[in-house]
Amino acid sequence: MKKLAYAVAVLLAATTTHAQHEDSVFLRRLADEILVNSQAYENLRHLTKQIGGRLAGSPQMVKAEQWGLGAMKAANAQNAWLQECMVPHWVRGGKDVANAKLAATKGEKASQKSLDIVALGNSVGTMKPMQASVIEINSFEELDQKKDQVKDKIVFYNYKFNPTFVRTFQAYSDAGRFRREGPNRAAKYGAKAIIVRSLSHSTDNNPHTGSTSYSDSTVPKIPAVAIGLKDADWLSNVAKQRNVEVTLHTNGRFLPDTIGHNVIGEIKGSEFPDEYITIGGHLDSWDNCEGAHDDGAGCVQTIEILRAFKAMGYQPKRTIRFVLFANEENGLRGGTKYAEEAKAKGEKHVFALESDAGGFTPRGFGFTVSAAQFQKIQGWQSLLAPYGATELTQGGGGADIGPLNRNLGTPLAGLQPDSQRYFDLHHARNDVFEAVNKRELELGALNMGALIYLVDKYGL
Amino acid sequence: MKKLAYAVAVLLAATTTHAQHEDSVFLRRLADEILVNSQAYENLRHLTKQIGGRLAGSPQMVKAEQWGLGAMKAANAQNAWLQECMVPHWVRGGKDVANAKLAATKGEKASQKSLDIVALGNSVGTMKPMQASVIEINSFEELDQKKDQVKDKIVFYNYKFNPTFVRTFQAYSDAGRFRREGPNRAAKYGAKAIIVRSLSHSTDNNPHTGSTSYSDSTVPKIPAVAIGLKDADWLSNVAKQRNVEVTLHTNGRFLPDTIGHNVIGEIKGSEFPDEYITIGGHLDSWDNCEGAHDDGAGCVQTIEILRAFKAMGYQPKRTIRFVLFANEENGLRGGTKYAEEAKAKGEKHVFALESDAGGFTPRGFGFTVSAAQFQKIQGWQSLLAPYGATELTQGGGGADIGPLNRNLGTPLAGLQPDSQRYFDLHHARNDVFEAVNKRELELGALNMGALIYLVDKYGL
Repeated sequence: MKKLAYAVAVLLAATTTHAQHEDSVFLRRLADEILVNSQAYENLRHLTKQIGGRLAGSPQMVKAEQWGLGAMKAANAQNAWLQECMVPHWVRGGKDVANAKLAATKGEKASQKSLDIVALGNSVGTMKPMQASVIEINSFEELDQKKDQVKDKIVFYNYKFNPTFVRTFQAYSDAGRFRREGPNRAAKYGAKAIIVRSLSHSTDNNPHTGSTSYSDSTVPKIPAVAIGLKDADWLSNVAKQRNVEVTLHTNGRFLPDTIGHNVIGEIKGSEFPDEYITIGGHLDSWDNCEGAHDDGAGCVQTIEILRAFKAMGYQPKRTIRFVLFANEENGLRGGTKYAEEAKAKGEKHVFALESDAGGFTPRGFGFTVSAAQFQKIQGWQSLLAPYGATELTQGGGGADIGPLNRNLGTPLAGLQPDSQRYFDLHHARNDVFEAVNKRELELGALNMGALIYLVDKYGL
Repeated sequence: MKKLAYAVAVLLAATTTHAQHEDSVFLRRLADEILVNSQAYENLRHLTKQIGGRLAGSPQMVKAEQWGLGAMKAANAQNAWLQECMVPHWVRGGKDVANAKLAATKGEKASQKSLDIVALGNSVGTMKPMQASVIEINSFEELDQKKDQVKDKIVFYNYKFNPTFVRTFQAYSDAGRFRREGPNRAAKYGAKAIIVRSLSHSTDNNPHTGSTSYSDSTVPKIPAVAIGLKDADWLSNVAKQRNVEVTLHTNGRFLPDTIGHNVIGEIKGSEFPDEYITIGGHLDSWDNCEGAHDDGAGCVQTIEILRAFKAMGYQPKRTIRFVLFANEENGLRGGTKYAEEAKAKGEKHVFALESDAGGFTPRGFGFTVSAAQFQKIQGWQSLLAPYGATELTQGGGGADIGPLNRNLGTPLAGLQPDSQRYFDLHHARNDVFEAVNKRELELGALNMGALIYLVDKYGL
């Protein structure tokens, strides 16, 4: 019995070693395919430079969908199609303008200064110039304390992006509540508009947009803009010394919902064709930038994994779906539709992976999986490590694949690239093609492809 | 006895836990100090924008030394001084120019094209225009095979920077032999000059310099230049189809050796003042760029650790030396002198750490230490991980601290930032301040400071 157990153990070890060797050989082939022949960078160049910003409902959205479908076919998708969904159609409606006017004081003459601002996504415009005094607020507690001073003013939320969070998404989450809840909270006390400090720790003055929310229907919707960091510091400084009147002119509004699409490519599974693995990014972007890192990168990485798998003749056991989601930024209608249809059809979605944290050098993956699944995944760490994704952690996924988890219980993962540069350009005019590094982009695709290969082969 | 052992074990565990807690608290304080108050970025701005490229022997070298001494004092070094050493004084001597001339053929007219090149450091110039036919060579084996075709030609080494090495320093080491040995090997067969493909996988056409060597004194020293990647591809393509004559004009030469200095700041140790820990980067850079990543970053990180330690009132047990080394790029005289003087004085150098791989986001450290020392270091992994340096590996150090290891057996470490972007700009005109990210630079300093704290506290 002891001998038998020993023999079984040896056999198991040999099998494991053989499988690990086979896996490491496959991953090396995948690496070579992507690092030598990748189309991701040239695809990104086209998406950003030929199409540009592509907010839901815009003409560029339509162009991007057509381009995406063509790119899926060019990458040799077995099937490729557009999945229709209604999307919101917010438009900026014109140039966002802000001017600060400083009244004359004993020592200083009256002066004015143009402020670098951008209207928040989904916000209502002022439609005509709106002038009001500015009151600086640094926390919602301070807002509540000063509620009697807020009426008819422009509330200037100047809460700083916290530099002591090493992982910058924590700072985004922390400071983000002012962009999201700021208008409603200020409107409750009679404010006319809000200016929010950009969610960034960059060294430049570019303002960063992003969606806001008017979820509290009991208060008026008031205009809302983000301001560049240098101008925020200037405004804070002068507002401490004297009265500052700011004139805002923005033109944001919603047009009726319109038709958008998720772009889907597919490789059918050989053993379990009814089990689905989803890889994706989102095709929409804000209108004030090229959306290169957010999320052009995730889209071209998704297509690259498809291209590489097909170029290598790789035949997955499970059906793999490569998805460019619609409308992540200001509605999440694409991701919602994808999960709805999956549920309606009774599809079995066993795993979903998203890249929506920038096309920077990969550091790892964050997982929303069970403890047992996470333990299994950790066993793959040494296979992934040579390619950069060394940090495997619990917690993570992506906005677009979130509905799959919530509606179908699908385990999720999100690529976690290095986060230091992301909020320097997130939702700002400097999120352009030139800010993406070719190899970092490719390594992201490579690590995602490697993870998908392992999940497909071994299940979760 | 068993009870006693248990009590000892509990006590040890409690002590360990307490120490670890103390360490993690200190490292968090260090992180906050650096991420909030760092001067590294502004120091780098000054070094790159006000002083610029600072090759050994240049007027900028002198300026940089004076600036460095001032910066050490401003960071509150207990002692700060210049350590004199003789340095080589290579000068470019003028603009490097190359023109390719294509003879007329049946189908095509004669034409010419200017090539983007840069003379290699330490190379001899052509001094006047030198014209010769080009022969492309892709390996030293091919060179040997074609030795009869090389005489009086310009050898064009077009060996590609291998994209399949995930860690780019491997590609640099692999392709680097053509820059280093290329002139000697070609001169052996009578070549008049060499053009080497830049050691890079960038997407631009900037040529990358770096030092070459004429170590074989039996063959003539011939001029040597690097060419941008797009021009290299063009040249390779046309040279396959017809004869290409290239005219080179470079002016490199050596002036007599001159006086340079290592810049040294110091905090004296409280318990073991005669044991030295060295942290450093190199102050010199190539003349064709600002030397921001190579190695302005390492210099300002070194100064930042000093500043942060002093600002926190941290008192090390051992004496810590903060060193900006002279002449790494084309002579290593600074590092050599530092180790020589340490040996002559009988100093005990217990550890040295260098940052000379760019100011990019830190990923880990490479160590040249004993197995026992490495095991001890690995025990610190969880303390370092929150700050990004998760990858601790055997092998590594830095050129400037190498002599300490070779002459005194000092254990070494090198900061290992992410390497994907480094060879896009290494030794090229785009190694400028704007390519450095403020937080990535600071995180490098922070992780280095953390490692130094642990080495100082626990020894190796």
